[in-house]
Amino acid sequence: MTNQAKHKPAVVLLSGGLDSATILAIARDAGFACHAISFDYGQRHRFELTAAEAVAKALEAEDHHVVKIDLSAAGGFGRSALTDDLLVPKDRPEGPGIPITYVPARNTVFLSLALAYAEVLGAFDIFIGVNAVDYSGYPDCRPQFIEAFEKTANLATAAVAEGRGRFTIHAPLIQMTTAEIVRTGLTLGVDYSLTHSCYDPAGDGAACGHCDACRLRLAGFAAADATDPVRYQPPQE
Amino acid sequence: MTNQAKHKPAVVLLSGGLDSATILAIARDAGFACHAISFDYGQRHRFELTAAEAVAKALEAEDHHVVKIDLSAAGGFGRSALTDDLLVPKDRPEGPGIPITYVPARNTVFLSLALAYAEVLGAFDIFIGVNAVDYSGYPDCRPQFIEAFEKTANLATAAVAEGRGRFTIHAPLIQMTTAEIVRTGLTLGVDYSLTHSCYDPAGDGAACGHCDACRLRLAGFAAADATDPVRYQPPQE
Repeated sequence: MTNQAKHKPAVVLLSGGLDSATILAIARDAGFACHAISFDYGQRHRFELTAAEAVAKALEAEDHHVVKIDLSAAGGFGRSALTDDLLVPKDRPEGPGIPITYVPARNTVFLSLALAYAEVLGAFDIFIGVNAVDYSGYPDCRPQFIEAFEKTANLATAAVAEGRGRFTIHAPLIQMTTAEIVRTGLTLGVDYSLTHSCYDPAGDGAACGHCDACRLRLAGFAAADATDPVRYQPPQE
Repeated sequence: MTNQAKHKPAVVLLSGGLDSATILAIARDAGFACHAISFDYGQRHRFELTAAEAVAKALEAEDHHVVKIDLSAAGGFGRSALTDDLLVPKDRPEGPGIPITYVPARNTVFLSLALAYAEVLGAFDIFIGVNAVDYSGYPDCRPQFIEAFEKTANLATAAVAEGRGRFTIHAPLIQMTTAEIVRTGLTLGVDYSLTHSCYDPAGDGAACGHCDACRLRLAGFAAADATDPVRYQPPQE
């Protein structure tokens, strides 16, 4: 579908991880002029912002905007292992339930700010790398959430009320396995060595290899018969 | 309906203006333990935050949390007379259309952060002072927007997915005239001298008397046969 969008502007939520790097490549391949947006929200794995910057550059985003919004305990929010003084689970057995890495209403907050940014830019297309197959049980990664947000967006803004367009929330990975995501990205030339997924990296950014994000990522590369090019911390004796 | 809520926690969006002070009084009168939340978003009339603090205290909110999120032009957003280098319209004739004081997706962003805050607190009730009668044409003050957001909230969060409750977005002013709002607030003991509505106040907080917010407020007090107790700038020759 190359150039289908004919350089229409799009806002792409870019965490710097595997999924969001892939959607940036997908949006670019579809011909959108991509405006990347990332969030400095008090996350433990703030290293992902460095990755996001490198990914935005490598995939030729028009620009990369980092929005600061403190969702940590210090900022009055917290209550997640990513934003609070709670342990990131390692080698967690698979099972039902929402893990402690869930950040309250995170995708609602991020999509709202992406919507505001899109309206400011005159864009009507927003890309988000949520995934409902190999996901961690987060409710705000489900198709019904994305559909409800899209409906809200189309009632929320002057851009729609004044008839300038209608918002589409694109979630192209939502029904893919991580292996399919990796294969898609590799086909589109994503350099996954620039990405960062680990929830609990070392100070130099090396991935732990044992949190949910690392394990999902490693399993995805394995299932895609590919090797994950990011650095992992050496095993501890 | 006093004490109906039996000290259940609620999050109340408090700008410091007439409408939000009234909803705080309504929520308190209904028996909610009110957690006020305000936004320091780069607004020209940042003075309203001082008002919000005084109102929260006077109406005995449990606490008052101010979230910093830069929606100004400097923060990469802007495109509103409230957050950008644009003139606030004075003595604007009434008419259709959305005025330049519209802030892109503001209520979506504010409600999202209120939702995150509610989930952190274990609250399921969120109060917002939107009004669809005497409003300025803002799309995110309409009942259909509030309904769509409520639906989104109930798909977005672990609190609902895990069966702990369902969110209600309360917009008790949505069908009231400003006169009815003033009368309601006066009955509930709101001290409107503490509130601030003006979009373009003087450095000392004195209201301009000519922006949409001032004119709506003054007309509301007049129709309620009451006198607005806030300070206005003296007329200029």
